[in-house]
Amino acid sequence: MLRQASGILEVRAPAQGLHSITDRVTEWLAQQDVSSGLLTLFCRHTSASLLIQERAAPAARRDLERYFARIAPEDSGYEHDDEGPDDMPAHLRSALTHTQLSIPVENGRMMLGRWQGIYLFEHRRAAPSREIALHLIGE
Amino acid sequence: MLRQASGILEVRAPAQGLHSITDRVTEWLAQQDVSSGLLTLFCRHTSASLLIQERAAPAARRDLERYFARIAPEDSGYEHDDEGPDDMPAHLRSALTHTQLSIPVENGRMMLGRWQGIYLFEHRRAAPSREIALHLIGE
Amino acid sequence: MLRQASGILEVRAPAQGLHSITDRVTEWLAQQDVSSGLLTLFCRHTSASLLIQERAAPAARRDLERYFARIAPEDSGYEHDDEGPDDMPAHLRSALTHTQLSIPVENGRMMLGRWQGIYLFEHRRAAPSREIALHLIGE
Repeated sequence: MLRQASGILEVRAPAQGLHSITDRVTEWLAQQDVSSGLLTLFCRHTSASLLIQERAAPAARRDLERYFARIAPEDSGYEHDDEGPDDMPAHLRSALTHTQLSIPVENGRMMLGRWQGIYLFEHRRAAPSREIALHLIGE
Repeated sequence: MLRQASGILEVRAPAQGLHSITDRVTEWLAQQDVSSGLLTLFCRHTSASLLIQERAAPAARRDLERYFARIAPEDSGYEHDDEGPDDMPAHLRSALTHTQLSIPVENGRMMLGRWQGIYLFEHRRAAPSREIALHLIGE
Repeated sequence: MLRQASGILEVRAPAQGLHSITDRVTEWLAQQDVSSGLLTLFCRHTSASLLIQERAAPAARRDLERYFARIAPEDSGYEHDDEGPDDMPAHLRSALTHTQLSIPVENGRMMLGRWQGIYLFEHRRAAPSREIALHLIGE
């Protein structure tokens, strides 16, 4: 029978950049009574975002972080700078990546590809704990 | 019991840029008989898109509009220009942002963070009315 | 009554760029016993992605391919280059577009707008067959 579940994942990234949350999400999913369905992650912030990326190569993640630092740089004459030089680029990097991801679930596991990991992309330097809302529907 | 609902939101943006649709979506949601579930917004256009962004600071929205005008500019030697200089950049800005957003719902309210608003990002200068398809599933 | 269905779409793009999968998805949907609901496509790769774009103008798709080749170029001094010069730009172009898309379904058809098509955006030159996980929930 179809049912749904929801939760909040609190994540504190130790620094700017990509932080794997795959294990945290896998753990939450394992506690739910749903083996096939759709899992949605929703980032409740505008200066952090979600990204599915290559999980095996740390160099790829460093290149990705440098890329976004370059295309949405800190010193770019922004009008909005009340909260520091990392604030506006954080909004831009969030806009260019994802606030929400939905992932099909089969046999109790997310249908991630072999090389895919789920990341919180933290864009602020001294970020507070972040909330990822989780929603699962299935049977 | 799980049920679903669907609808169309017609939105006409008065100008290019970010136009809040948070209130319109909240209003539609309040009319549905679902208090927890998943709400999906789908923009039925390729020259307008959806974005969740900072809702408190108008300067942040202006910076964001200027940023996209800069990284996907009008005068860039596009092959496709039948519909005017704002046509091809509109497709690019749509590709870089979102055609679809799904937002968990709890206690009859979207699980938006405190500073998040939902925006139609209109990329054309003289745009017609836009259709956002809505889908809600939950109980 | 609400039910769900899932499947895998195997797609082999003959070259880098945008490859329409609208017909393949439409065909899969027609075989399911669901006429209204939500269809989710999930790309199980980090060097290919999904995009909804203008389906009538091939020139618009070529401009879009050239644009991504320009903003995430091959020769940019990446640290990660074990798998060739098209590997890291592939991850970047994937990050800037979409791993997942959800599309409302009504009367057995996706609620795509008149000019929208669904594309696999292949970022590698000699790519293997790609898997798109499909999930459908509805009634």
